[in-house]
Amino acid sequence: MSKPTPISGFPEWTPAQRMIEQFVLDRIRDTFELYGFAPLETRAVEPLDQLLRKGETSKEVYVIRRLQGDEQEPAGEDALGLHFDLTVPFARYVLENAGKLQFPFRRYQIQKVWRGERPQEGRYREFVQADIDIVDRDTLAAHHEAEMPLVIGDALRSLPIPPVLIQVNNRKICEGFYRGIGLTDPEAALRAVDKLDKIGPANVAELLAQTAGASEAQAKACLALAEISAPDASFADAVRALGVDDPLLEEGIAELVRVVETAAEHAPGLCVADLRIARGLDYYTGTVYETQMRGYERYGSICSGGRYDNLASSGAVRFPGVGISIGVTRLLGLLFGTGGLSVSREVPTCVLVAVTNEEQRAVSNRVADALRRRGIPTEVSPSAAKFGKQIRHAERRGIPYVWFPGADGAADEVKDIRSGDQLPATADTWTPPTEDLKPTVS
Amino acid sequence: MSKPTPISGFPEWTPAQRMIEQFVLDRIRDTFELYGFAPLETRAVEPLDQLLRKGETSKEVYVIRRLQGDEQEPAGEDALGLHFDLTVPFARYVLENAGKLQFPFRRYQIQKVWRGERPQEGRYREFVQADIDIVDRDTLAAHHEAEMPLVIGDALRSLPIPPVLIQVNNRKICEGFYRGIGLTDPEAALRAVDKLDKIGPANVAELLAQTAGASEAQAKACLALAEISAPDASFADAVRALGVDDPLLEEGIAELVRVVETAAEHAPGLCVADLRIARGLDYYTGTVYETQMRGYERYGSICSGGRYDNLASSGAVRFPGVGISIGVTRLLGLLFGTGGLSVSREVPTCVLVAVTNEEQRAVSNRVADALRRRGIPTEVSPSAAKFGKQIRHAERRGIPYVWFPGADGAADEVKDIRSGDQLPATADTWTPPTEDLKPTVS
Repeated sequence: MSKPTPISGFPEWTPAQRMIEQFVLDRIRDTFELYGFAPLETRAVEPLDQLLRKGETSKEVYVIRRLQGDEQEPAGEDALGLHFDLTVPFARYVLENAGKLQFPFRRYQIQKVWRGERPQEGRYREFVQADIDIVDRDTLAAHHEAEMPLVIGDALRSLPIPPVLIQVNNRKICEGFYRGIGLTDPEAALRAVDKLDKIGPANVAELLAQTAGASEAQAKACLALAEISAPDASFADAVRALGVDDPLLEEGIAELVRVVETAAEHAPGLCVADLRIARGLDYYTGTVYETQMRGYERYGSICSGGRYDNLASSGAVRFPGVGISIGVTRLLGLLFGTGGLSVSREVPTCVLVAVTNEEQRAVSNRVADALRRRGIPTEVSPSAAKFGKQIRHAERRGIPYVWFPGADGAADEVKDIRSGDQLPATADTWTPPTEDLKPTVS
Repeated sequence: MSKPTPISGFPEWTPAQRMIEQFVLDRIRDTFELYGFAPLETRAVEPLDQLLRKGETSKEVYVIRRLQGDEQEPAGEDALGLHFDLTVPFARYVLENAGKLQFPFRRYQIQKVWRGERPQEGRYREFVQADIDIVDRDTLAAHHEAEMPLVIGDALRSLPIPPVLIQVNNRKICEGFYRGIGLTDPEAALRAVDKLDKIGPANVAELLAQTAGASEAQAKACLALAEISAPDASFADAVRALGVDDPLLEEGIAELVRVVETAAEHAPGLCVADLRIARGLDYYTGTVYETQMRGYERYGSICSGGRYDNLASSGAVRFPGVGISIGVTRLLGLLFGTGGLSVSREVPTCVLVAVTNEEQRAVSNRVADALRRRGIPTEVSPSAAKFGKQIRHAERRGIPYVWFPGADGAADEVKDIRSGDQLPATADTWTPPTEDLKPTVS
């Protein structure tokens, strides 16, 4: 077998990086559970027709098939694809299990997703997302839209990462405004404005004319709206100063005021109303969120979502929802790239028990048993080499302590290999300092 | 959208079951880390030719392709398949990163895998495995083969599941023995004996004649070997009593004695030498493990593995390894099927904060903030309905406490909705009993 090479877009972390990722995922999960979100995991695959319901995303889907697909397939197994987000599978799960669920249903979901996009920095073909969503039956109270950024703010603040800013908008503001100025295809206008960061205002104006039939004045108004940004309810005055009147616009303003004011009370500085935020996927119908990490703004949002009213419906029953998703792999990829995160050692091990000679390996095993019973991560040396070599084995991995079983009735001793201090100890009572027990992330 | 239906072989747990699964995965991970295994996660895909290197498994592989595959693909992206286990990707990872790793390299890996097999009870197309492996460069010390069952024994004993029995054999015993009695195709003989539980001794004897060219006496000897089983080194006497002499046989006996004796010392009753255990996959070259759970023996092994000497090699460099894998989804599927595992509530939430009226939602939010800051999972009531209705919201989810913010300067009160007891409390000091803080699994 020749040396294998990485596959572009399918990142793999080192064990040390994976320890950091687990630390991050544990913190995120703890925060989600503190807010009462229940865990859910859906299968990795969905029927292809479900994945393609929203035409925009069809190009990103991976299809799967059995290599030996000629055998008789179980009923219902038509074409399957890997899910490209966790919202579409969640909406499907809610419809499938509506009879068994309590509404409003709060769930979190931390899984890999796959997209066949062109890989680039901060953009992968296989990546982990950490989502929360709340869905209700028939109607969903607007206060849930104000709660989402607070959960995410707490989750991200619990991590050793740069501060974040959550940018919030409401599709009703854009749609109402576009309609109010006489544009007949608000979705096309939204898609054009969504490109503002990428192509700049002049090109957006041109696109608005081409795809949404906007006049020069209309395009200018759209751009004026997109320029509005404020950390508080003052954005509403700025919108009204543009002199457009529309009931949907007013509804959107009221909802966005609530989100921004709730955030200002509970987490000052976390949120800003930013009326250029649109979100590409077209299932959002109200509040939308994006998140910038300070110093990494140019890589785009690390956490996005919004309210969707039409993603899950079955006959006359609708399940409106709101959700937000942390792009864990993107976040980690960016921070790993700049050395922004590190872990104190490469293995979980706190103590390496030395082996005096192979005949006495059982003695070392018993020491390790005793330490592990007390929750101390312990390895037994793989070889009975000279002690100097066994100590180097620990050093290379960052294991802080080496334990020497006492010979001929002498006491055991434990060495802190960083300081060189070596002291008598018994495995039933010795305890390392708390900061040495497990690897720490900073 | 019509009501979706499950896809056969792709199980999805309820949120309550997922809480149990997370509890199980956390315990397994804790044990693996206590033994110093470092975490690793590999991508879900491997080049198809790598997955098909072992012909036996080719029928199980899922191939993936981009739906819009006509675009220019990044270099190196030929046919990809979903991994069907975690050992083959791990071997590839070791080869790819050998220069960066410290050997012996101990890693654990907990991920989903996919196999296109016919679904049946306890057998899935998408399932979670929890693996540990140790690989070394050039040679791997035999004591690692004795360590594996001890780790697994500790991991499984930490779970609220029936007791397990790990059955151990050594391929060298079988191969040496078959060779010793004059059979020229030991692999064919191994495959025939592997079917003993399924088709019985008479059919195995016939299969041995057909596929391995065994005479009646040779088939009888093979079956006599397969019948040997003992919880200690006495199995060796039983093998030797069959009067076959072969150096590979002796090597295998010595290795298996060590595994069984180490287990007997550290975990009495955990392991048994069982000479019928073969393992279907053909990459094992020494010790092999299977695991039965009491009361669920008929569903087959819930935890299997073995030693492999030839899975990862690059030119003259070899990386022999030994590993074992817990079939988490199979284990849970069996226990869920018999109601063998339950969780104390359906949500992580410990406290539901009632909302007096929508204008005062911020008051309830502040109570929730204070409780969460102290690590108490808390939800705010989704509606300001009558308190009776808000209490029922908690009841239906198994949330034990409902918190009532005091009106007009009165003290807050907290109600244990199981006993009906309601007492004054402040969010900065109130603490629930430890057993109520988080859902408990039993």
